[in-house]
Order: sequence, then C-alpha cells, then structure tokens
Amino acid sequence: MFLQGRQEQHLRRVLEVKVGQEVRIGLIDGPFGVGRVEDIRPETIELGCFFEPTPSPRPRVDLLLAMPRPKVMRRLWAPLASLGVRHIALTNAWRVERNYFDNHLIEPEIYRPLLLEGLEQAGHTHFPTVSIHRRLVTLVQEGLDGLFGMGTRLVAHPGSARRVRHVVTPNVSDRVLLAVGPEGGWIDREIDLLTKAGFQTITTGDRILSTSTAVQVLLGLIHDALED
Amino acid sequence: MFLQGRQEQHLRRVLEVKVGQEVRIGLIDGPFGVGRVEDIRPETIELGCFFEPTPSPRPRVDLLLAMPRPKVMRRLWAPLASLGVRHIALTNAWRVERNYFDNHLIEPEIYRPLLLEGLEQAGHTHFPTVSIHRRLVTLVQEGLDGLFGMGTRLVAHPGSARRVRHVVTPNVSDRVLLAVGPEGGWIDREIDLLTKAGFQTITTGDRILSTSTAVQVLLGLIHDALED
Repeated sequence: MFLQGRQEQHLRRVLEVKVGQEVRIGLIDGPFGVGRVEDIRPETIELGCFFEPTPSPRPRVDLLLAMPRPKVMRRLWAPLASLGVRHIALTNAWRVERNYFDNHLIEPEIYRPLLLEGLEQAGHTHFPTVSIHRRLVTLVQEGLDGLFGMGTRLVAHPGSARRVRHVVTPNVSDRVLLAVGPEGGWIDREIDLLTKAGFQTITTGDRILSTSTAVQVLLGLIHDALED
Repeated sequence: MFLQGRQEQHLRRVLEVKVGQEVRIGLIDGPFGVGRVEDIRPETIELGCFFEPTPSPRPRVDLLLAMPRPKVMRRLWAPLASLGVRHIALTNAWRVERNYFDNHLIEPEIYRPLLLEGLEQAGHTHFPTVSIHRRLVTLVQEGLDGLFGMGTRLVAHPGSARRVRHVVTPNVSDRVLLAVGPEGGWIDREIDLLTKAGFQTITTGDRILSTSTAVQVLLGLIHDALED
C-alpha cells in the first residue's frame, strides 16, 4: 500500500518511521493489522499490510442525543468516535432550539472527518452511523427497535437514584442505548415517553453536568460496566 | 441579599423568577441554601437567603495533570470544576511543550471565572485550588504528600490491565489522586517515578483517549466508584 498526504505525513513527521519498522493500522469498518515500512520516498511511504483474519469488534453502545448547540456538537464528534458508539441518533426535544438543525455540522462531509479523527485517536476502525430526527415522539414510538435493537435502554436524568453499574453488566447487556437530553434536561412528558419505551433513568450523582461532559462520562461508565 | 449583574440576569431571563419563588443557592467554599425572591426591581433582585448549618462536602478527588495545550486547557477548567476536583496540580512532563506554560490561561484571573462556570453548572460550591509545577520530579519527590495527603494514587497508562473500580471503593479510599499524562503519554521514566511514589497504573480500556476525554471519563469513574 502506498501512503500519501495526511497519513504519509503522520508516519514521516510524528512517528518518524524507518524502513523495516512496523506500525499499527486499521481498515475503516474492518480489521486491525500491522503495516511494515517497505520504502520511504520523497512524498510516498510504502507499507506492506497484514490484516487480522477477523474484523475488530463493533461498539456495543448507541447514543440518542438531543441536538446540542452547534459549538458543542462540533467538539463532540471526535470524542464520540474515540469512546466507541455504534449509532448516533440526533433528535429534537422540547428544550432544543429549532435552529440547531439548520447548520452544516450535521452534513456527513463535515462530521465524517471529525469522526475519523476520533477513530484515529482511539485506534479503532468502526465509523459510527448517524441519523437525524426532527420528532422525538416519532423516533421513540416507531424508530427505536429498527435502529437499536432490544438492548438495555438508559436515559440520563438528574432525579434518578440508579447508576449505570446497577443496570449494565457484562452478562445482562449485549447492547446499551443511552439517551442524553438537552442542556435544560428532558421535560416530564419526554421522560414518560422514554420510560414507556423501556428506558430506565440513571444519574451520575448530584452534580448537574453539561451535555458534553455528561455524554463522555456516561459512555465511559457504560463501556466500563460492559467489561469484566 | 441584593443581586445585580450576571446573577440577577440569570434569575430574570433564564429562570424567569417571580416574587415568592425559591431558588437553589450556594456560598462559594461554603454551604448550600435556598433563596426566596423578595422583590424584583429594574436592575436588582432581592433574595432572602437561608443557608444550611453545615458546609457542603469537599470533593475527595485530586488531579495531577501534565499541562495540556492551551486550547484544550481552556475548555477543561469548567468540566473539572463541575465534576468535582479538590486540588489541580498542573505539571511539566517530558512530552509537554515548554511554551504551554507561557500563556495567560494559568493566571487566576483567567481560570477562576471558568471554574466558577463549572461550579454553577454542577450546583456545587467548592472552588478547586490550583498549583503550577515546572518540574515533575520535584513535585513527585517533595510536594505530593503536602498537596494531596495519603489517599489512593492512580496514574492513567494504556498498558495497564487495572480499572478504577478494581482499586477505588467507598471503604478503602477517602481521597483519590489521579495523574493524567500528556497527549503522547508518560515516558517509562515518569511511570517509574510515579509508581515509586505509590501510584497504581489504571486504564479505561483498549481505546486511547485524548487528554480531555480521558480526564473527564476517569474523574467520572472515580466519583462513581467512591459512591455506594
């Protein structure tokens, strides 16, 4: 495989590779592997690539996120990919401002490079899939099973006394769907809707966290609870 | 108490308070309380304040953080305060660039408003204290016990197989000190230095996280493990 551009620059300038050196590689949505540096030319590096026979495991966690304001969402794409999310559903909610949907950040050409940055950071290969939903009710009543299957469903809600580790265990949960609301929280009607669809409320404690911090902490807690 | 400026604006525009309404209040480094809206005038809101007799608990977690680049550090102050950190020690390390220390972000006039934002978000009152260290060796060999006492000491290191919940439990740990390295990680010599000072290596799994994500996730895991 001949590398040019961004990847070639990374090997040359950051890793400062030499011929014969091996680097960790991964195929997007495919397996991990090892690349052996065969040749270093002025603008090209040649790698001999060996991929593992089985693809790397897909993340077992999905995210249903009330659309954050654009500045917050921009910074969240890479962390989401690095932490490991299989599907990201961005949705409207009562306290989401309508104009959050009128921005180019939800175009694949914009968010895919940011997701890729997160995958490269983490050393993982599975691109999260993304869907956008203008009506929470329709999504919850008609779309959830198709998008996420029947795993454990959690919704972050400050009033709850339940913690992630009380409901997520390696044996019980094959997939986990986490719902995180807007900065002002879900309204009661939305919590009712979600609990009727099988979501259990959970909390990170008595501190109210921003969307960005809450999402990262909760994904960390869920991944940790899924491991033995 | 007469409120003006930022706090008065928050009550008026965000909470849209009315006379007689009660809001949650807190005294910096002191107790929580309840404020009853007594009077609303053009630029002033009068609150009758009732504070709890005992101060709110101080966070039991401290952070030793290799100085991140300024852009990352700027965004981290508020999350750190919201997650609950008692003392933040920013330190040099082999892979920290020297010029990260030459920036105004480490001046109290700059970071205190950002910490306050995090405290307000979380609804907590204890300002983290902050210290800056130009030499990791000196800090670890001479300064740790004075700054942090003798609690459980953890250092994030991707090679480790240990997880936070394996070493932090409500009974065992009164205080926890978490050390997080620079983007490129600690070098072996630094890991040696830290383990000799009683730090146990821990990991969040096989994904390499950015400093910002790693700090938030690990603080979340530690706080969670400290709770029953």
